[in-house]
Amino acid sequence: MTEGATGARAARAPDPVALSQALIRIPSVTPDTGAAQDLLAEALEAAGFTVWRHLWGEAPDGPVANLFARRGTAGPHFAFAGHTDVVPPGAPEDWPGPPFAAEVRDGLLIGRGASDMKSAIAAFVAAAARTDTGAGSVSLIVTGDEEGPATFGTKRLLQWMREEGHVPDHCLVGEPTSQAALGDMVKIGRRGSVNAWITVAGAQGHVAYPHMAANPIPALVEILQRLQSRVLDEGNEWFQPSNLEITDLEVGNPAHNVIPAAAKARLNIRFNNQHRGADLVHWMEDTATSVTEKAAVEAIVSGEAFFTDPGPFAELVAGAIESVTGGRPDLSTSGGTSDARFIRAMCPVIEAGLVGKTMHKVGEAVAVRDIERLTDIYAAILTGYFAPQRG
Amino acid sequence: MTEGATGARAARAPDPVALSQALIRIPSVTPDTGAAQDLLAEALEAAGFTVWRHLWGEAPDGPVANLFARRGTAGPHFAFAGHTDVVPPGAPEDWPGPPFAAEVRDGLLIGRGASDMKSAIAAFVAAAARTDTGAGSVSLIVTGDEEGPATFGTKRLLQWMREEGHVPDHCLVGEPTSQAALGDMVKIGRRGSVNAWITVAGAQGHVAYPHMAANPIPALVEILQRLQSRVLDEGNEWFQPSNLEITDLEVGNPAHNVIPAAAKARLNIRFNNQHRGADLVHWMEDTATSVTEKAAVEAIVSGEAFFTDPGPFAELVAGAIESVTGGRPDLSTSGGTSDARFIRAMCPVIEAGLVGKTMHKVGEAVAVRDIERLTDIYAAILTGYFAPQRG
Repeated sequence: MTEGATGARAARAPDPVALSQALIRIPSVTPDTGAAQDLLAEALEAAGFTVWRHLWGEAPDGPVANLFARRGTAGPHFAFAGHTDVVPPGAPEDWPGPPFAAEVRDGLLIGRGASDMKSAIAAFVAAAARTDTGAGSVSLIVTGDEEGPATFGTKRLLQWMREEGHVPDHCLVGEPTSQAALGDMVKIGRRGSVNAWITVAGAQGHVAYPHMAANPIPALVEILQRLQSRVLDEGNEWFQPSNLEITDLEVGNPAHNVIPAAAKARLNIRFNNQHRGADLVHWMEDTATSVTEKAAVEAIVSGEAFFTDPGPFAELVAGAIESVTGGRPDLSTSGGTSDARFIRAMCPVIEAGLVGKTMHKVGEAVAVRDIERLTDIYAAILTGYFAPQRG
Repeated sequence: MTEGATGARAARAPDPVALSQALIRIPSVTPDTGAAQDLLAEALEAAGFTVWRHLWGEAPDGPVANLFARRGTAGPHFAFAGHTDVVPPGAPEDWPGPPFAAEVRDGLLIGRGASDMKSAIAAFVAAAARTDTGAGSVSLIVTGDEEGPATFGTKRLLQWMREEGHVPDHCLVGEPTSQAALGDMVKIGRRGSVNAWITVAGAQGHVAYPHMAANPIPALVEILQRLQSRVLDEGNEWFQPSNLEITDLEVGNPAHNVIPAAAKARLNIRFNNQHRGADLVHWMEDTATSVTEKAAVEAIVSGEAFFTDPGPFAELVAGAIESVTGGRPDLSTSGGTSDARFIRAMCPVIEAGLVGKTMHKVGEAVAVRDIERLTDIYAAILTGYFAPQRG
């Protein structure tokens, strides 16, 4: 672990587009081991933040660079969260320009990380630099491993923040949540996810003499039938129904006259806020072992569902968007997982960022105008948050 | 196709043990392409048989040598059926002696094919040579591919026999049916076997967006659950219950966040005389397509069940055994398949042969005394069959 603190404070507000370009030009394919965060730390210090940096973990899931920056020491404490790592660019020749050149063409900034999510980080630094946050605190939680296994990323950084007394009151994650136009959607929740592997052990033998063998497949079929027969829930006002998918079956028996020795299935459940991951794992275990003692369940809860009740925080974000774009965002809980799954345990969290339709794709790009407007939105959120009636 | 006929007739009866040894010393690992049958043809011609020989098929399932021999032209027509091919010996160093040396040690003839079933063929030739079969006919149906795919073996030879007017009235298959002692068991039936592959087609997609995909696994699980829930039958006086085994599941999806495009299962049904293979295939097809139109069933009926009612033919065989060994055989329908599955369509068939406990194993061996007594049993069967009251 390396850790350093700097306290330089300044009022120079960076240009969010230029900062986006500078960040994109550092090809920090996941995990970022520090290069992009060097530049970010410089910009934050120039904007008056104190910066703490950490390089955690070893191969294969590390090392991973993480950064926490805070301006102010008292509450209220508003945090912005994001990541400097990006997914690989794919074939460079399929891009309209070099994927890390950050060229602007026809009003679009093109490059890996333009949408997901270096431009949002740049917008946040620019917004914080130009906004008076009064007696409160504003902070930035940045990991270099959101796109990878995330073992040494946000989860570990949050633990450090708790230990060091940096628990925020509210957090905005800058993932690209907009669908067709900037600000048309924000996420006030996401489903949780659990992966499970169910194995049934048997005893190999010849199909003509089944009494001399123990076929594991009938029990596995029975277990899967019971699991897939349950309606987990009907969904609710804010969430679609929880959903179980059996994603793989594996026996690997090449001989048609042989009863196999073991059978395996893999499942994934995407669950809403009516469930907890551990309860679903117990339910799968109970179901499997009630069919046969020879069943074993391994499971990984990769994230719990999170949900932030529509209320003052969501209203602040929605109002800020409306003041800039003229439209109100949909409050959604759809889509995959993000680091909000970890932050939810610490404080209310909402995700709001750029248009994500090109994220992870060849030719990732965002409108230069959207980076500027997102900066205005983030600044409006900070202004509203730190207005005298709140502080 | 090669075909030849010889009609030399002689009365010299070979020694069954010496003929067994001579046959074992020709290492006719499946398929026999003719070497062992050259020797057999010579012995049959010496015993008064007319011999027809056929080399059928091409790679990979051929060529396969087949032989039909008949003495006499009128009815009644009693046939013996067997094969000259053997399974591979495995590691020669694990054998008590060279696997194709046909050494006799402590009263045991050791060698690949000693039990399954060159000695039984030798016993039959010796029995026929020394027995007066009157005005009737005795024949030998021999394939060189019983242990392999059997594409160009008995099935094809039976078709030729039908075309040439050689349909027997009764047939004895010389497979090693005895369990612990010579003649303790004969087979008056065997279960049939059908292999089936059920495939359900779907559409690949991300687990977080199941409405954009079509997971084939739930339907496959439902199909398999319905199939395995049916009690095919309770068995009957002569047969154990029919049995379905799911022998493989295959999806092959390495990604835990992806819904797969297809799912496949393989099944085997061993069925008794209460079913026909085609009916079981239709049942599987109906079950699968009633769950989803996206299901497809491929099936191969590798043999129908056969059953020869206990009656005069079984009594003849059992009586011959009792006259030699002093004990009566169990009439059984247990075990795997044999070429009787093909012959059953032509005439009543019973299987009776040596002790099979070393068949297909390292160190395959039979008692020399059993080869001599099996010759006596086969001779007693022929004598009884062709006694004046029958002819």
